[in-house]
Amino acid sequence: MKFTAEQIASLLGGEIVGDKNVVVSTLCKIEEGTENGMSFLSNPKYEHYIYETKASVVIVNKSFVPEKEVNTTMIKVEDAYACFAKVLDIYNEFLLNKTGVSSLSFISSSASIEEGAYVGEFAYIGEGVKIGKNAKIYPHVYIGDNVTIGDNVTLFSGAKIYHLCIIGNGCVINSGAVIGADGFGYAPLEDGSFKKIAQIGNVILEDNVEIGANTTIDRATMGSTIIRKGVKLDNLIQVAHNVIIDQNTVMAAQSGIAGSTKIGKNCFIGGQVGFSGHINIGDRVKIGAQTGIMSNIKDDSSIFGTPSWEARSYMRSYSFFRKLPEMELRIRELENKIKELEGK
Amino acid sequence: MKFTAEQIASLLGGEIVGDKNVVVSTLCKIEEGTENGMSFLSNPKYEHYIYETKASVVIVNKSFVPEKEVNTTMIKVEDAYACFAKVLDIYNEFLLNKTGVSSLSFISSSASIEEGAYVGEFAYIGEGVKIGKNAKIYPHVYIGDNVTIGDNVTLFSGAKIYHLCIIGNGCVINSGAVIGADGFGYAPLEDGSFKKIAQIGNVILEDNVEIGANTTIDRATMGSTIIRKGVKLDNLIQVAHNVIIDQNTVMAAQSGIAGSTKIGKNCFIGGQVGFSGHINIGDRVKIGAQTGIMSNIKDDSSIFGTPSWEARSYMRSYSFFRKLPEMELRIRELENKIKELEGK
Amino acid sequence: MKFTAEQIASLLGGEIVGDKNVVVSTLCKIEEGTENGMSFLSNPKYEHYIYETKASVVIVNKSFVPEKEVNTTMIKVEDAYACFAKVLDIYNEFLLNKTGVSSLSFISSSASIEEGAYVGEFAYIGEGVKIGKNAKIYPHVYIGDNVTIGDNVTLFSGAKIYHLCIIGNGCVINSGAVIGADGFGYAPLEDGSFKKIAQIGNVILEDNVEIGANTTIDRATMGSTIIRKGVKLDNLIQVAHNVIIDQNTVMAAQSGIAGSTKIGKNCFIGGQVGFSGHINIGDRVKIGAQTGIMSNIKDDSSIFGTPSWEARSYMRSYSFFRKLPEMELRIRELENKIKELEGK
Repeated sequence: MKFTAEQIASLLGGEIVGDKNVVVSTLCKIEEGTENGMSFLSNPKYEHYIYETKASVVIVNKSFVPEKEVNTTMIKVEDAYACFAKVLDIYNEFLLNKTGVSSLSFISSSASIEEGAYVGEFAYIGEGVKIGKNAKIYPHVYIGDNVTIGDNVTLFSGAKIYHLCIIGNGCVINSGAVIGADGFGYAPLEDGSFKKIAQIGNVILEDNVEIGANTTIDRATMGSTIIRKGVKLDNLIQVAHNVIIDQNTVMAAQSGIAGSTKIGKNCFIGGQVGFSGHINIGDRVKIGAQTGIMSNIKDDSSIFGTPSWEARSYMRSYSFFRKLPEMELRIRELENKIKELEGK
Repeated sequence: MKFTAEQIASLLGGEIVGDKNVVVSTLCKIEEGTENGMSFLSNPKYEHYIYETKASVVIVNKSFVPEKEVNTTMIKVEDAYACFAKVLDIYNEFLLNKTGVSSLSFISSSASIEEGAYVGEFAYIGEGVKIGKNAKIYPHVYIGDNVTIGDNVTLFSGAKIYHLCIIGNGCVINSGAVIGADGFGYAPLEDGSFKKIAQIGNVILEDNVEIGANTTIDRATMGSTIIRKGVKLDNLIQVAHNVIIDQNTVMAAQSGIAGSTKIGKNCFIGGQVGFSGHINIGDRVKIGAQTGIMSNIKDDSSIFGTPSWEARSYMRSYSFFRKLPEMELRIRELENKIKELEGK
Repeated sequence: MKFTAEQIASLLGGEIVGDKNVVVSTLCKIEEGTENGMSFLSNPKYEHYIYETKASVVIVNKSFVPEKEVNTTMIKVEDAYACFAKVLDIYNEFLLNKTGVSSLSFISSSASIEEGAYVGEFAYIGEGVKIGKNAKIYPHVYIGDNVTIGDNVTLFSGAKIYHLCIIGNGCVINSGAVIGADGFGYAPLEDGSFKKIAQIGNVILEDNVEIGANTTIDRATMGSTIIRKGVKLDNLIQVAHNVIIDQNTVMAAQSGIAGSTKIGKNCFIGGQVGFSGHINIGDRVKIGAQTGIMSNIKDDSSIFGTPSWEARSYMRSYSFFRKLPEMELRIRELENKIKELEGK
């Protein structure tokens, strides 16, 4: 894929300052600019890079006035960041423009697939499955019986969706993610062994949910494990049975949520965080990485540590934890002085 | 699937109180009852729900005497919970009643499969593999050379079993689980690089072991990594080479066990727990979530924290950790008072 | 596979002491010796095992002089450990000697594969893919468009390589590992939802990198996520976008690295460790299991805890943490005594 600066400027409705014939074949950060690369400058903090970048083209804001000579070609636009993001999207769509239904896939006769679908080699689509418009089903995807998949959904290679689950419009599920495996529910027997409790519920992903690689979301015992619209889950996350995660909450990699816990809207959850089962987390809660949460958390809290605590208090206590040997010494000195005073 | 209350009562040997013709098409919790749903009431704590539930049918204990009017149809049985669990099992078996060997699977000529098997599309069964009766091998399962699989085993889509591993009767392995990948063993070389130590052992799962989605169990360097009968491992767990987990131990998601560690029987292990290598954990040990264990643990211990400690002691120390800023203040005040006293 | 002691001795250039006709059919540890098993004795600490082992053959150092009667057959060589490792390698290569390109795989017409390759059933090889010599591509592997794979690479069943990634010579990628899924990058919108930032970079694994089962390495937003030569990553590790891990660093299972962090050479990183984004870790750093790192770390550090700290200091503070209830008591006693003294 090669474009001239002129072609890109025309696409973005921008104005060229420099060589209109310079060729762009890749996109890059301004600080890692390469020949034939195109970058952008939006944050003034990065301005100094434009005077030294090797990128052939840099998209800048109309308002940008260089303080020194600029050797690269600039394309001036209203909003440099937004324009660059648009170019990124176009480029990415080009990379992922798979179409057609492979004759090497397996599609049950009772499944229905709307127009515009890509179904890759060795993909498996079970009985009664319904797939919306413009779905992208990569190779090795497994879609169990009676799954419903919305419009514009992407399932990357090897994503696994167990029977009866529901995937909303615009969802993206990365490779190796497992949606709808059995919840971890067992009844103890008298001999110390365990009897499995059948897990007959499902998982519902509402619209625009994104699921990272190798993340697992278990089906509900009964009813549904629910991931509400706009939630973004990173890689290797565990979501147990009957959990509910509310709108637009974002969770970093390797965090885990035990059964029946409810997490509010617009939360920011760091990596490797653990949640006990059957607790409620409020809205807009911020949770530091590796935190372990064992009880309900109120709206708008900021928490940290295991067991978790208000983040600032935790860090204050932790600063004294670091001084514990010294504190113990101070106690010992006091004890000695008291002894002396008592002896007087 | 639709049944009348009468049909279900007849199946369970129960007595109907209410409308014998009401139709049941799904199962639900009593507190989340829906029309045409069937639920159960066993725990008296939930009794108030039966007066307001929207479930069309509720299974109750024979001994149950309502305190108010009940609008739903009841089926009275000896043990409501046991009967409901039986219905769950029947329903689940119905959902998962796949049979037949797909012509789109690959089965080596030297493999043997006993009667009653389901082998799904794109499943791969290697040379010399032996598979017992009534196995369910879902699409995209990989079974390497000379693997032995017992009777009534279920391998969900995308489970991977490396060569030479042994899977006992009644085991269930969820999607994306990897059994028998190479142990993480390297010999350091003088130039700072590492030479891989060939991992020629295997993994043995004894009977009735269940493995969660995307859990990984590495093969032994030599000999076997062993998961004894009745062990239940949740999702995203790591079990390193030469580990042994004894009977009926239960481990929650995202926990990890380093090489050659032995874990006893009937332990309850929380999520995100880490075990160092080459240590011994006793029987009936309870371990809190996110605990980090670096040394041997005795039978019947209850432990928590990193590095781990007796759980009650840890929580007691932790309660003082929360008071550290205040403790430091008290020390400072003492120091001031001592100075005053010394000045007298 | 069966060999006589004589055949093995001839292969290793060793000298037999005992029965030259005894048969070896497996390899084992000396302390877990079995009939027809072959083991080795190198570390004098294990010498006592040779007098009681059931292994049929033990490889020993030329210099070894038994203190008691040895009933097993010995093969004397210059370096027993090195010889045994050689036998392990030969045995392992024999177990993994798959060859040929399956007619049940899918190979794009624009892909190129050098000589000596194994391509298993249901493997998918995308457009423009280049694969080097002697590659082993197991069943269900996914190789996206325009991926480059070096010589002597092994991709175990179900490994997933997204488009444009580059895998160096001699790399090993285990089952379920996902290389090149989208980085976790979103721009917040005014309504609280998030817009995905297209992730158009790739992942580069340099030579001799090994990746554990179900580990995930995200592609860069732009540019590359880079794993330098000789790095060994265990199972279930998360590596976020634009991370760089330098040569010969070793990382245990379930650790996670947030975006744009750089990790130095020859580091030893324990299991379940977490790294914040945009930080720098020096060379030869040792990091204890479950550590949480939020800031830059200097070369040659040894660190532990969350937030992380110099390991020895952490453990010292932690020893006082365990004494906190007692310390609080001492403060209380001091307060009482001061009151008494003030009252005087």
